[in-house]
Amino acid sequence: MMVRPEITVSVQEARTLAIKVLQDHGAPSRGAQLQADLLIEGDLRGHPSHGLLRLPRLVRRIAAGVLDPVTEGRSTWTHSALLEVDGEHGFGAVIAHNALAEITERAASTGVAAAVIKNNNHIGMLAHYAEKVASGGQVLIASTTSEALVHPWGGRRAMVGTNPIAVGVPSAGDPVVFDMATGAVSMGKIHAYAAAGRPLEAGWAVDADGRPTLEAERAKDGAIAPFGGAKGYGLGIALEALVAALTQTALGRDVRGTLDDDHFSTKGDVFIVAQVQRGAPHAVAAYLDDVRNSPSADPRTPVSVPGDRSAARRRRALIDGLSIPDALWAELHTLASAPASKGSLK
Amino acid sequence: MMVRPEITVSVQEARTLAIKVLQDHGAPSRGAQLQADLLIEGDLRGHPSHGLLRLPRLVRRIAAGVLDPVTEGRSTWTHSALLEVDGEHGFGAVIAHNALAEITERAASTGVAAAVIKNNNHIGMLAHYAEKVASGGQVLIASTTSEALVHPWGGRRAMVGTNPIAVGVPSAGDPVVFDMATGAVSMGKIHAYAAAGRPLEAGWAVDADGRPTLEAERAKDGAIAPFGGAKGYGLGIALEALVAALTQTALGRDVRGTLDDDHFSTKGDVFIVAQVQRGAPHAVAAYLDDVRNSPSADPRTPVSVPGDRSAARRRRALIDGLSIPDALWAELHTLASAPASKGSLK
Repeated sequence: MMVRPEITVSVQEARTLAIKVLQDHGAPSRGAQLQADLLIEGDLRGHPSHGLLRLPRLVRRIAAGVLDPVTEGRSTWTHSALLEVDGEHGFGAVIAHNALAEITERAASTGVAAAVIKNNNHIGMLAHYAEKVASGGQVLIASTTSEALVHPWGGRRAMVGTNPIAVGVPSAGDPVVFDMATGAVSMGKIHAYAAAGRPLEAGWAVDADGRPTLEAERAKDGAIAPFGGAKGYGLGIALEALVAALTQTALGRDVRGTLDDDHFSTKGDVFIVAQVQRGAPHAVAAYLDDVRNSPSADPRTPVSVPGDRSAARRRRALIDGLSIPDALWAELHTLASAPASKGSLK
Repeated sequence: MMVRPEITVSVQEARTLAIKVLQDHGAPSRGAQLQADLLIEGDLRGHPSHGLLRLPRLVRRIAAGVLDPVTEGRSTWTHSALLEVDGEHGFGAVIAHNALAEITERAASTGVAAAVIKNNNHIGMLAHYAEKVASGGQVLIASTTSEALVHPWGGRRAMVGTNPIAVGVPSAGDPVVFDMATGAVSMGKIHAYAAAGRPLEAGWAVDADGRPTLEAERAKDGAIAPFGGAKGYGLGIALEALVAALTQTALGRDVRGTLDDDHFSTKGDVFIVAQVQRGAPHAVAAYLDDVRNSPSADPRTPVSVPGDRSAARRRRALIDGLSIPDALWAELHTLASAPASKGSLK
């Protein structure tokens, strides 16, 4: 197994460098900060595939004219509680942040409000938004589509996105922050296994011919299995249809632009925010503690609830710093000193 | 393996008898019809645990004064798009039907609208509502809590409901109707295996001491595993907290009243309805066909999408009739001729 050398950097160092890279490539200060913070959240929560690893791609997308680093998008309240957002191919973090700001405020008077977003770049870890909204005392349900990477249950070809669903619920303690993709594993993990020469686990993926494989290199051209069998597959399809129907964005193999350098993004994002009942945060916190204190199967590993592990990882990383591959760190430095190469939107 | 004798009855016969039973025990005509139709949907879709099997329990709950067969509940628009419903312990089908009628109409002007429901009896198969709303051209996201029957991932005690989530999306063909519980199997299935003396599959359940078991009889006092490992567990917990926070209902082991004869129901129900984009039904239908036509792992079994199998089962049952256990059919006839025993609400 190959080991790739890593460097440990403080969150502050990483943030400063990421902001500089983004600003050097045309992002205004606020946009650069929002997008950098989103990427760093991915690394903080232990999901580097949603972290700084994506920054060089964002720069290439700016250069290719499929990401506009300046726009804030355009939004319209088509109905009193429904915000339609055209992201105008801006930064995912900026468009998502603006949409959430509008609907969290609106939901205070309408009780529930939703944002349906098209023409937006990758919005990163949904957990980031779930935590933000739940910490503000409202619930969030979020989903987004992705390139077709998952094969149907009983199928062999990638037809479904890894379509994550996230839920945030306020609690008197740490909020409930649930965020999962509907694939058995992420394509990022398949790539990491391929780079490390590690065999996959059985049931994770099929190759380009639709045959089950343990070879990560072959799975890269194949498809990921849905998580949880027929149920997980059903949830993935339901989210694919739901997001597309609400946002008028692409479905299945027509989705592009979150894993490549030169296609406009055709996926959709959906946020639904709602008001909670008085007393809910205390009731939820008491329940979560009951669950944590319930008997565990392995006495050395207490029962945890969604968000516990990544919150702990995040707290440690804030102190210990982030582990970034040497090569990535060097690339970011190069990008920060390279001449700006902002393309105009295609 | 024990075989329990069954009788085949037409849907019309079953419906007439169920309505008579409900009317004989105090339900007005409309309520009896809505509740009977909901139960029959369970049998039509091949989920007898949500079918007529529940009717004797409803009668016992009326007699015990924990189900009011007459009330239509009370609903208040606390915000312009948020309907708070006190079911006043009425029939689940009636309260759910009324709430959906209000929010589907409201969503036409607000874009999205939600109903949060407490003090309501079991609302049956969520697929029923998903199909109804999607057929009307809107999307539905629905969830409901249940008695704690599922153990945490890495845990041993039942702490989480089987908390289903359903999604309905309009399509130019049959709508997308997705409905799953977040347990690996239903407690109904465990009971059916116990009655048949059949061993469980590995990974389905633990016994009262939290030890994995294949003995269905022992699992009845134990806990069901979450579906899909840590992810399915996380989704179950997230829905438990989400529903409780929106409805101010009970959590975890405090949830009662859907599996017993004499406790008020303390669970919550949540419906969210939203408007779709023009053209969505055609885009969704084309996508579903792409998925169905994609290569299958087993050439004898084509790829299906959520709702296909139960729609096919439903169509067959409408022609061939329903298979009802002899003993249940006899019990329903007895209930229909028994003197009414309507208790007053506790």
